[in-house]
Amino acid sequence: MTTKDSSSPLDATDRAIVRMIQKNGRRPNTEIGRALDLTETTIRKRIARLIEEGLVNIVAVPTPRAVGMATSAIIGVSVQLGNLDMVSKKLSSYSEVRYLGLSTGRYDIIIEAFFNDTEHLFAFVSDKLGALPEVSSVETSIILRVDKFSYEWELP
Amino acid sequence: MTTKDSSSPLDATDRAIVRMIQKNGRRPNTEIGRALDLTETTIRKRIARLIEEGLVNIVAVPTPRAVGMATSAIIGVSVQLGNLDMVSKKLSSYSEVRYLGLSTGRYDIIIEAFFNDTEHLFAFVSDKLGALPEVSSVETSIILRVDKFSYEWELP
Amino acid sequence: MTTKDSSSPLDATDRAIVRMIQKNGRRPNTEIGRALDLTETTIRKRIARLIEEGLVNIVAVPTPRAVGMATSAIIGVSVQLGNLDMVSKKLSSYSEVRYLGLSTGRYDIIIEAFFNDTEHLFAFVSDKLGALPEVSSVETSIILRVDKFSYEWELP
Amino acid sequence: MTTKDSSSPLDATDRAIVRMIQKNGRRPNTEIGRALDLTETTIRKRIARLIEEGLVNIVAVPTPRAVGMATSAIIGVSVQLGNLDMVSKKLSSYSEVRYLGLSTGRYDIIIEAFFNDTEHLFAFVSDKLGALPEVSSVETSIILRVDKFSYEWELP
Amino acid sequence: MTTKDSSSPLDATDRAIVRMIQKNGRRPNTEIGRALDLTETTIRKRIARLIEEGLVNIVAVPTPRAVGMATSAIIGVSVQLGNLDMVSKKLSSYSEVRYLGLSTGRYDIIIEAFFNDTEHLFAFVSDKLGALPEVSSVETSIILRVDKFSYEWELP
Amino acid sequence: MTTKDSSSPLDATDRAIVRMIQKNGRRPNTEIGRALDLTETTIRKRIARLIEEGLVNIVAVPTPRAVGMATSAIIGVSVQLGNLDMVSKKLSSYSEVRYLGLSTGRYDIIIEAFFNDTEHLFAFVSDKLGALPEVSSVETSIILRVDKFSYEWELP
Amino acid sequence: MTTKDSSSPLDATDRAIVRMIQKNGRRPNTEIGRALDLTETTIRKRIARLIEEGLVNIVAVPTPRAVGMATSAIIGVSVQLGNLDMVSKKLSSYSEVRYLGLSTGRYDIIIEAFFNDTEHLFAFVSDKLGALPEVSSVETSIILRVDKFSYEWELP
Amino acid sequence: MTTKDSSSPLDATDRAIVRMIQKNGRRPNTEIGRALDLTETTIRKRIARLIEEGLVNIVAVPTPRAVGMATSAIIGVSVQLGNLDMVSKKLSSYSEVRYLGLSTGRYDIIIEAFFNDTEHLFAFVSDKLGALPEVSSVETSIILRVDKFSYEWELP
Repeated sequence: MTTKDSSSPLDATDRAIVRMIQKNGRRPNTEIGRALDLTETTIRKRIARLIEEGLVNIVAVPTPRAVGMATSAIIGVSVQLGNLDMVSKKLSSYSEVRYLGLSTGRYDIIIEAFFNDTEHLFAFVSDKLGALPEVSSVETSIILRVDKFSYEWELP
Repeated sequence: MTTKDSSSPLDATDRAIVRMIQKNGRRPNTEIGRALDLTETTIRKRIARLIEEGLVNIVAVPTPRAVGMATSAIIGVSVQLGNLDMVSKKLSSYSEVRYLGLSTGRYDIIIEAFFNDTEHLFAFVSDKLGALPEVSSVETSIILRVDKFSYEWELP
Repeated sequence: MTTKDSSSPLDATDRAIVRMIQKNGRRPNTEIGRALDLTETTIRKRIARLIEEGLVNIVAVPTPRAVGMATSAIIGVSVQLGNLDMVSKKLSSYSEVRYLGLSTGRYDIIIEAFFNDTEHLFAFVSDKLGALPEVSSVETSIILRVDKFSYEWELP
Repeated sequence: MTTKDSSSPLDATDRAIVRMIQKNGRRPNTEIGRALDLTETTIRKRIARLIEEGLVNIVAVPTPRAVGMATSAIIGVSVQLGNLDMVSKKLSSYSEVRYLGLSTGRYDIIIEAFFNDTEHLFAFVSDKLGALPEVSSVETSIILRVDKFSYEWELP
Repeated sequence: MTTKDSSSPLDATDRAIVRMIQKNGRRPNTEIGRALDLTETTIRKRIARLIEEGLVNIVAVPTPRAVGMATSAIIGVSVQLGNLDMVSKKLSSYSEVRYLGLSTGRYDIIIEAFFNDTEHLFAFVSDKLGALPEVSSVETSIILRVDKFSYEWELP
Repeated sequence: MTTKDSSSPLDATDRAIVRMIQKNGRRPNTEIGRALDLTETTIRKRIARLIEEGLVNIVAVPTPRAVGMATSAIIGVSVQLGNLDMVSKKLSSYSEVRYLGLSTGRYDIIIEAFFNDTEHLFAFVSDKLGALPEVSSVETSIILRVDKFSYEWELP
Repeated sequence: MTTKDSSSPLDATDRAIVRMIQKNGRRPNTEIGRALDLTETTIRKRIARLIEEGLVNIVAVPTPRAVGMATSAIIGVSVQLGNLDMVSKKLSSYSEVRYLGLSTGRYDIIIEAFFNDTEHLFAFVSDKLGALPEVSSVETSIILRVDKFSYEWELP
Repeated sequence: MTTKDSSSPLDATDRAIVRMIQKNGRRPNTEIGRALDLTETTIRKRIARLIEEGLVNIVAVPTPRAVGMATSAIIGVSVQLGNLDMVSKKLSSYSEVRYLGLSTGRYDIIIEAFFNDTEHLFAFVSDKLGALPEVSSVETSIILRVDKFSYEWELP
């Protein structure tokens, strides 16, 4: 149904580099170069190109503990269909929302959001979602435990 | 309901540093030091401590395009309750699964997973989920468009 | 509950002819005549009558691949009941919709529709269904694989 | 999400030919040739190639009235996931089933089926679906009226 | 939870009489009297009192076949709660509705209704239910076969 | 979809007679005869034939109050499909069940049942339905008020 | 539907006494006696009788804060019907469960339970509910805020 | 996810006192003092402090039988999200409502309410809930039997 493009835009060297910075994004270029038998300049240029072409992001991600976010939830949102774009834009602007996907199936929009505590979650549903009359209903699932949260894609 | 811990374990200097590497994880320590009027050593030590204490991850994240993953889905999974831990461990081991949360509400487990195409998705449901008799049913929502996917937490 | 009309409006000769053109709609009349020991004129007249009386359609059906339609979906639509006829007429006018049935049960209308890709599907839901305020909600099931799509009825 | 292949495998002449046989599959090659200013041989070869390459089917489709099928239904089927392929193959073998799709969302399999009457429908659910212990539940929507059933794709 | 009133308002003679007319409502008083060793006057008076006090109805019930009603359905109706009484009164006035109950659970109102055919059912949903904006949704279950329809209560 | 048989098997005289006994099933033949200008014998023979041919039942129906049944419920039953006939037969044998229909849609079987009180209802669900492992789940709607319960069909 | 017993087993004096101890269960008998112009002995005897006859409980209720219970949830439980009594008895024995009702509608059993935190809730679902194979599924609603929790019945 | 505060604000003596008044709230201070080898004054002061600090309520709770409430129900309420606070306040003001929690999951608000009988329940839904246009739907579960209703918390 979808055209399967098995050819990745990363060549073998790109992949080797990415594998070395997947877990430690600050590994020095010289160290990577030594490991792969390449010059520091090659490493630096390759990484710059990967970022420029939107193939890799190298980012510092504070953990929920660092920002004092104790409660996460997956929220299924039903929307008056003519307002899908508008509601998505609005919800995406809230700092609690880390992920927003437009979805098939039971819900029109699925978001992942983080909260300080359940009071914060209630205020979000009541005041932020409640302020959008185009949202016809929401169904909140509180996440009791996260068993996988991976930044590491398996490279093909 | 939850004890709200408003005191973040990051002090003002930590936050200033993290803000500078949230979007560009490879910004050199010297550059950060200059901007914040601190020595390179201070920056290096602070970042090392933040990572060590599990407050910040600095990671290279290949984009779905880089790994040829074209289709993502949120899958709600219902499980025979006595096998929650076992099923969670098994599902977490699959490379297609990027996120797995144990959940209240309609589903027992919610996963986010990425696939090459819809054939791959079908094979995952039929062969990988289908191999677990402890999974009583699944409900797959295909994500048509991702409007927010944020690594950037707003620091308090 | 329904009066069972076991008498088909096709006689034995009609059925023999239809069976010969079910898979190859362009089989020449002379060839059919030879096979059934009938004149070309009889075959031609019989086929003309079957079409005229709405008992058989002989049609060229481009396959989804030919028209570049890669994604199909079954969409359950809930409608404000007083507008069922209007909404059905409107939805039937969309070229993406191949099938529309008014239904008992969970949905008021069930459609089958074809799309170039998931972006096209989203635009359909958001812009075409979203433009109809009489549609109160939709639930989209993406078809991962079609295992049967039959033009061949078993003749009684 | 899916690679959009806007280039159709049909060229302009193919499309012109297909348009002429979409509603009347038995239109003579000579008539089509005259209308498009092409020889009968060109038309014949083109149509043969379109069929051979699986781009177009030319078929005689008896209408439900012709085969005495008075009742149609869309049936959502939930299946023990490890048996999806087996159940799909079995259901596809039943003559009542005209369409079978493997699906995301609320159901695992969606079928369209035709019946002589509601007794026939009950026997199908009770005896044919009921004979498959791998089917965990079904939800039948009877189609009260079909407002669109199209063999005619809009060619790009 | 409910006060169980095991004392029936029918005495032993009442019960004996009712049992004799449960299946044949036109059994003559004299015949009943002979069987129970009572006078015709006693039987006549007892039956008159049972009817007067609303304990027994003696009625001629045409079967669905007699009135040409071929299709029955149970319809769950969701209503804007402030209009429950009004909607119930309106629905009760329709001749297709044989039974209407106000209900706890998934639906607000449950009706049983009879139709000539599925066209009639569709017209009922579309035109009669559709004319009531206070009805927010309906879910129709077509009855494929009635296995019990009893006028005979077991007397305590 | 269903063959509409608009010709009722009752002629004009039959209908006139039935209308006179719909509410009072014991109206004497002589009284009906006088009203319709027919002999007592004609009335008697007509009524006998209507009963014999299964077109009309004339029955005494004790009201729920008479039999001390205070609580009624509509129960949707989900069944392992291969056991539909067996479960239906079993449920029909219970004296609490007044109506049982095999159904399309959300449930496989829908029953109407009467109980002395909510304890009785619980015992029915727990002990009678609970004794059938082929019943996979039930959903009980308690009827708070019956607004229509009609024995009177409108004759065509 | 239920026999309405408007006659309360409390007389006017009983009610006056109960009203005085509804909020403060330790108000001295002498103080109540003075207020109602009755002897201390009368008050003491009346209260003793109310407790003995199961009309009033006078209890010390530690608040959730006192026992360190931070999270409450309403959990709908679906059970294999033949095991309703057994499962109810088992669930009632768990100290987390404060309330258990056998229910009509979507769930078979509804419980209210209190937990130290979400980890405790997960352990309860996974280990205690998960140990009962007769529980076919549960749906947990976390209570974000309790707006009413009343020990005070309005006396008639 | 929630900070687990295992340190209860009650010390060992508090707990010993509370355990002695959990079932009998009127046990005299002198009796408690004797049992715990403490003065009457200590007991009195301790209990006063526990009440003052909101750690324990000592209350007289009339049983449902005492107030003639025969029917209880758990009602799930769906609300237009912007009006959650207003609807909660309104519902909490009704004397039938004993418990109201703001909830995640299928419903926005869950209430427990008591009624004289099912007529009373219907009037509550129709007139009180029906008077609030901000309530979009309700789902009522009647409680057939209460198997646990505990005032006794297990002290840590």
